[in-house]
Amino acid sequence: MTLETTVAPLAIDPGTTAWLLVATALVLLMAPALALFYGGMVRSSSVLNMMMMTFGATAAILVAWTLVGYSLAFGDDLGGGLLGDPTQFAGLGQLLDPAANGDLAYPVILFAVFQGLFCVITGALISGAIADRARFGAWMVFVTVWSLVVYAPVAHWVFDFSAGDHVGGWLANDVKLVDFAGGTAVEICSGASALALALVLGRRVGFGRDPMRPHNLTLVMLGAGLLWFGWFGFNAGSALAADHRAAVVLVATLLAGASGTLGWLVVERFRDGHATSLGAASGLVAGLVAITPSCGSLSPIGALIMGAVAGVVCAYAVGLKYRFGYDDSLDVVGVHMVGGIVGTLGIGLLGTAAAPTGVDGLFYGGGLDQLGRQSVGVGVVLVYAFVMSGIIGLVVDKLMGFRIDEEHEVSGIDLVVHAEAAYDLLASPGARSTGSILTRGDA
Amino acid sequence: MTLETTVAPLAIDPGTTAWLLVATALVLLMAPALALFYGGMVRSSSVLNMMMMTFGATAAILVAWTLVGYSLAFGDDLGGGLLGDPTQFAGLGQLLDPAANGDLAYPVILFAVFQGLFCVITGALISGAIADRARFGAWMVFVTVWSLVVYAPVAHWVFDFSAGDHVGGWLANDVKLVDFAGGTAVEICSGASALALALVLGRRVGFGRDPMRPHNLTLVMLGAGLLWFGWFGFNAGSALAADHRAAVVLVATLLAGASGTLGWLVVERFRDGHATSLGAASGLVAGLVAITPSCGSLSPIGALIMGAVAGVVCAYAVGLKYRFGYDDSLDVVGVHMVGGIVGTLGIGLLGTAAAPTGVDGLFYGGGLDQLGRQSVGVGVVLVYAFVMSGIIGLVVDKLMGFRIDEEHEVSGIDLVVHAEAAYDLLASPGARSTGSILTRGDA
Amino acid sequence: MTLETTVAPLAIDPGTTAWLLVATALVLLMAPALALFYGGMVRSSSVLNMMMMTFGATAAILVAWTLVGYSLAFGDDLGGGLLGDPTQFAGLGQLLDPAANGDLAYPVILFAVFQGLFCVITGALISGAIADRARFGAWMVFVTVWSLVVYAPVAHWVFDFSAGDHVGGWLANDVKLVDFAGGTAVEICSGASALALALVLGRRVGFGRDPMRPHNLTLVMLGAGLLWFGWFGFNAGSALAADHRAAVVLVATLLAGASGTLGWLVVERFRDGHATSLGAASGLVAGLVAITPSCGSLSPIGALIMGAVAGVVCAYAVGLKYRFGYDDSLDVVGVHMVGGIVGTLGIGLLGTAAAPTGVDGLFYGGGLDQLGRQSVGVGVVLVYAFVMSGIIGLVVDKLMGFRIDEEHEVSGIDLVVHAEAAYDLLASPGARSTGSILTRGDA
Repeated sequence: MTLETTVAPLAIDPGTTAWLLVATALVLLMAPALALFYGGMVRSSSVLNMMMMTFGATAAILVAWTLVGYSLAFGDDLGGGLLGDPTQFAGLGQLLDPAANGDLAYPVILFAVFQGLFCVITGALISGAIADRARFGAWMVFVTVWSLVVYAPVAHWVFDFSAGDHVGGWLANDVKLVDFAGGTAVEICSGASALALALVLGRRVGFGRDPMRPHNLTLVMLGAGLLWFGWFGFNAGSALAADHRAAVVLVATLLAGASGTLGWLVVERFRDGHATSLGAASGLVAGLVAITPSCGSLSPIGALIMGAVAGVVCAYAVGLKYRFGYDDSLDVVGVHMVGGIVGTLGIGLLGTAAAPTGVDGLFYGGGLDQLGRQSVGVGVVLVYAFVMSGIIGLVVDKLMGFRIDEEHEVSGIDLVVHAEAAYDLLASPGARSTGSILTRGDA
Repeated sequence: MTLETTVAPLAIDPGTTAWLLVATALVLLMAPALALFYGGMVRSSSVLNMMMMTFGATAAILVAWTLVGYSLAFGDDLGGGLLGDPTQFAGLGQLLDPAANGDLAYPVILFAVFQGLFCVITGALISGAIADRARFGAWMVFVTVWSLVVYAPVAHWVFDFSAGDHVGGWLANDVKLVDFAGGTAVEICSGASALALALVLGRRVGFGRDPMRPHNLTLVMLGAGLLWFGWFGFNAGSALAADHRAAVVLVATLLAGASGTLGWLVVERFRDGHATSLGAASGLVAGLVAITPSCGSLSPIGALIMGAVAGVVCAYAVGLKYRFGYDDSLDVVGVHMVGGIVGTLGIGLLGTAAAPTGVDGLFYGGGLDQLGRQSVGVGVVLVYAFVMSGIIGLVVDKLMGFRIDEEHEVSGIDLVVHAEAAYDLLASPGARSTGSILTRGDA
Repeated sequence: MTLETTVAPLAIDPGTTAWLLVATALVLLMAPALALFYGGMVRSSSVLNMMMMTFGATAAILVAWTLVGYSLAFGDDLGGGLLGDPTQFAGLGQLLDPAANGDLAYPVILFAVFQGLFCVITGALISGAIADRARFGAWMVFVTVWSLVVYAPVAHWVFDFSAGDHVGGWLANDVKLVDFAGGTAVEICSGASALALALVLGRRVGFGRDPMRPHNLTLVMLGAGLLWFGWFGFNAGSALAADHRAAVVLVATLLAGASGTLGWLVVERFRDGHATSLGAASGLVAGLVAITPSCGSLSPIGALIMGAVAGVVCAYAVGLKYRFGYDDSLDVVGVHMVGGIVGTLGIGLLGTAAAPTGVDGLFYGGGLDQLGRQSVGVGVVLVYAFVMSGIIGLVVDKLMGFRIDEEHEVSGIDLVVHAEAAYDLLASPGARSTGSILTRGDA
C-alpha cells in the first residue's frame, strides 16, 4: 500500500486528478461495453469473434500508443502541424517524474493514457463494419498500424493545442476547428475507416438476402447502457477539469442520449409501425455520437435538438448500405460517420457563445464562419481516414489475407477462428422440466 | 478539447464537483441496471418490452424534466410549500451561466440533472408492476405525465430545502421529515404508483396459476450488482459533497445491502428450504431501499440492522400480492413500497444523533417526535402517489388503451409490440456437437 | 437530502475523498464482476451456485469485517506485528465521529470499508476452485471464518503500516515487503486458500475426462471487462490519494492488463493454433494480478513486461492441475497464486526507484536485497493461507459436510441447492419462426 510517497508538485489538484482518474476508467469501460453492443448484434456463431476484435484492439493499441502513438499525437510538432515528434515520449517513462507535469493540475501521464483510450475506442469501432468475416490476426495487424498511421496524426491535428513553447496540430490551432471530444478524430475517423475496410473485405455471404438478426438484444442494451455511462468520462473528461465546464458537457451528453433515443424510436414508430429495442440502443448511441464534438458548444435545449436530429438522421442513414451495396455490418458508417458529421457541422449552426467553447453558430448570429471551419475538419478527416485505412487494409489483405473462407463464414467464425462456441446452454435440459423450482413469494 | 475556458466562480470546488460528476454518472447507470434486473425476471418473450420501458422512461423523463420538471421541483415555491415555479428554470439554459452557481461548491446545472435522474429511476421502477401486458406508447405517455404531476411535486415537498431567499417544500422545511435520498420521494412513491397501475391494468393471464419464472437469473444478478454500484452515487451523492458525511452514507449503503441479502436468504432457507439467487438479489435491493432514506441517520451497526430487517420483512411482503390478488408482477410494492416504509419509519426508531443527520430515534432516547414526522411523510406521499397515478393511469387507459390484447400477451409481447425476439441462440447448433473446442489448459 | 451538516475537520480534502468514494464503489463492483467471470465459465446447471458463492461471501464478509475483521487487521498491534486489537473498532461506530479522522485527508470509516472489500474479493476468488460441488451453507461458514482467521491477520502483516503511535504488521514494517495492492494478501492468499480447499473437497465427477466447457463466454468477457474497470479502484485507490502516484499506478494497471491479454493469446496461437476469448479474458486477469503488488514500482515499459510475463506464465500454469491432479476448477491457483508470485517477486527484478515506491530491483542495479524481502512475503503468506484454509475447510467438512451428493453434482447443483435454473429461454419458440421481425435499416 503506502511505503513512501513521491512528492507531487504543488500544482497537482486532487479534485481535478480524481475526476481524470475516474474519466480514464470510464473510457476504458467503453471497450467491453462496445464489445457487448456489437457482440449482441451479430449471429450467435460469431459473437466471440466480434468481442475479440474489441478486446484485441484494446490490448494492441495500448502497447502501440505507449511505445510511439502518444508521441506522434502529442509530441512537439515536426512542422506544419501535421505530426508530433515520435521519440519525445516513447515508452512514456519520461512522464514518471512528477516534474513532467509542469504547472498542470493533473499528472500528464494520466492524460497520455486517457488519450490512448480514445484511440482504443476509435479503432475498436471500426470492427463493426467487418463482422463475421475477418481473420483475427489480420485485424490485429491492421488496427495496430492504423493506430499509428491514421489515428495518431488525426489526433495531433484535432486535439493537440499549442501552449507555451509546445506547438500542436493544424486543425486545432490554425483552422480553429471546434471538436470537444472527437466528432472528427473519433466518430468520422472510425466511420470513414470502417467504410474503407468494408469495401476491402467485401460483403458477407447472404448480405441483403438473409435476415442476419441480432442474436442477443439484451447484450445490445447492456452495451448501450454501459456506453452511455462511459461516455460521461469521454466527453466531460475532455474538459480536463472538474468544473462548471465539465458539468455543462456532462449535461449535454445526458440529454443528447435521451433525445437521440426518442428521435430514432419516433422514426421507427411511424415508418415501420414498431419501436424496437435495437432502435432505442442505436438512437442512444447516435445522439451520443453527435454530442461528442458539440458537448461544449450547446445549451441544454440545443443538446436535446442535436440528439434528436442525429437520432432521426441516422435512423435513415443506416439504410444507405442496402442502397449502395457496401456491407457495413453493424452500421459504423450510418451511425458514427453520419452522426459525427451531424454533430461537427451542427456546432456551426446551433453553437452558442453562452456555452463553454464560446462560439456562436449560424442560428445564434455567428454567421457562416464557424460552419466553414467545421466543414474543413469534417472533409479532411473523412478523406484522410478513408484513403489511408483503405490502403492499409489492402496491404494487409495482400500480405496475409484479411478474409476467412466462405465455407467457414457460413458455418460460423467463432468455431473456426477461435475454436470456441459462445454458448452451451443445453447442458441440463432436465432442469427445465422439474416442478420444484421456487419463485419469489411462493410461500 | 480545450479552446477557451469559461471562468468559474471561486466557490466551485474541484473535489466536490468531481464527486457529483461521478455520482450523476452512477445514477444514470442505475437505469440500464434496472432494465437488466427487471428484464431477467420476466419471460424470454417479454424481456425486451421490460427493458424498453426503462430505456423509454429514461429518455422521456429527461426531456420533461429539462423543460419543466426541474422547475416544478426546485423552483421557488408558489405557496404553501406545494409546488415550485414551473417557468423559473424552464429548459435549464438559465444555469449555463456560472453566475447561477452563486456560492455553491458545485455547478447547479449538475444538481439539476442529478435530481432528474432520481425522477428517471423512480419512474422506471413503476414498470415492474405491469410486466408483459402494457402498450409501449401508453406507458411512455403515462410516465411522462407522471413525472410532472406526481414526482416533481413530491420531490419539491421532500427534497427542496429553503435557503437564503429560496423557499422550498413543506415536508422538508415544515414537517422536518428526514429522507436523505428518497425513501418517500423515490421508494414509496414508485411503489404506491406501481400498485395503482397494477390495479388499473389488471392481472396477467395466468397470474397465480402459471409459474412465470425468471427467464435469465444471470441478468437479474448482473442488474442487482450494477444497482448496488450505482446506489453509492444515489445515496452518497445526495450529500452534495465529498466529505465525512458522504463517507458515512456510503458505508451505510454498503452494509445495508449486505445484511439485506443475508436477511432474505435466511428467510428462504428456513421457510422454503433453499436460498435462491433471486432471493439474494431481492434482499440486496430491499436493504438498499430501506437505507435510502436512512443512510445519513444510522451507525454502521444500525445500517446492518436496518438492511436485515428490510430483507426479512420484504421477503414476506412479496407474498401479499397473491393474498390480495393484485398482480404487482416484479414486486415493486413488496420491495420498494414496503422497504421504503421500513427505512423511513426506521429513522424514528434507530436514528442516532451521532450520525450526520443528527436525529435521535426512539431507541436512542429521542422519543416519538421524529417517528411522528416520518409517519406524516410516509402517509402523505403514499396516498398522493397512489391516487394521482391511478387517475393518470385510468385517463391514459381511457384515451388510448393501456393493455395489449390477451392473445398477444400469451404469444409474447416483444414480438407484437416491438417486432423483435430477444434471443436467437440456435443459429448454429452444429457448433455444439464438435469435439474440437479448446478449454483452458488443454495443452 | 441535507438537513444539517456535521462539520468535518479541516484536514478532510474533497478531492482525495471523492477519489476514495469512487475507488470503494469500484472495488465493490468487482464482486458482481467476478461472479459473472466465474459464472460464465461453469456449466449452465451450476452458474447460479457459482454466482451465489460470490454474492454470499460479499454479504457475510462485510458483516464479519464490520464486527471484528477490520480491528484484527488495522487495530493496534497486539505484539510482534502479528494481529491487531479485535475490540478497537468493533462495529465501526467509533469512526462515526469526524474526530476519528485525525489529520487524514479522507474519512477513516471509508478506509475501513475500502479494506473490507479487499477481503470480500479475496474470499470470493477462492470459490473458483470448488465450482459445481460445494454446499452453499458450508461455503458461507467457511468464508466467514476464513475472513477472520486467514485474511485479517495477513492484511495486518502486509497492509498495516506503523504511523505515529500506531504499531502495524511485521511484513510491512519489519520485512519492508513492497506489495502495493495485494499480490500477497489478495492474490497469493486467495490462490493458496483455493488450492487447500480444492484438495479438501476433491475433484469433480468427470474431472480430466469430460470437457467442462464454459457455458457462456459473453458473461466471462463481460466479467473480465468489469474487473479491469474495478481494478483501477483497487490499485489506484490503494494510493489513498488522487495524485501523481495514483496516476502512475492506474497507468501500470491499464498497461499490464493489455500486455497480459497479448501474452496469453500469443501462447495460445502458437501452442494451440487458436487465440480464444477465454484466453483473452484470462490473460487480462493474469496481467492485472501480477501488477497488483507491483503497480507502484514499475515504469510503463516495466508494466508492459510484467503483464506479458504473467500472461505467458499463467497460460502454462493453468495446465498444472491436470498434471498434479487437483481440481482447481476455474484456475485460481494457476492465475492468482502464480500471477501473484510473478508480480510480487518481479518487484525485486523490475522495480525502479523512479516509480512511486522508490525501490530498485535487480535489473535496475538494486541487487538482491528487495528480492529477498519479497520472497519472505510470498513464502509466509502462501504457507499460512494454505495451511489455515485447509484446516478450516477440514473442520467445516467434518462438522456439516462441504460437498453435495455425487448424483446431485451430475444432475446440476443449481436445482438441488438453490431450487432454480439460470435460464428459461425456450418459453416462446414460435418467436423464432416468424418472418416479421425487423432488422435495423430494413426500411
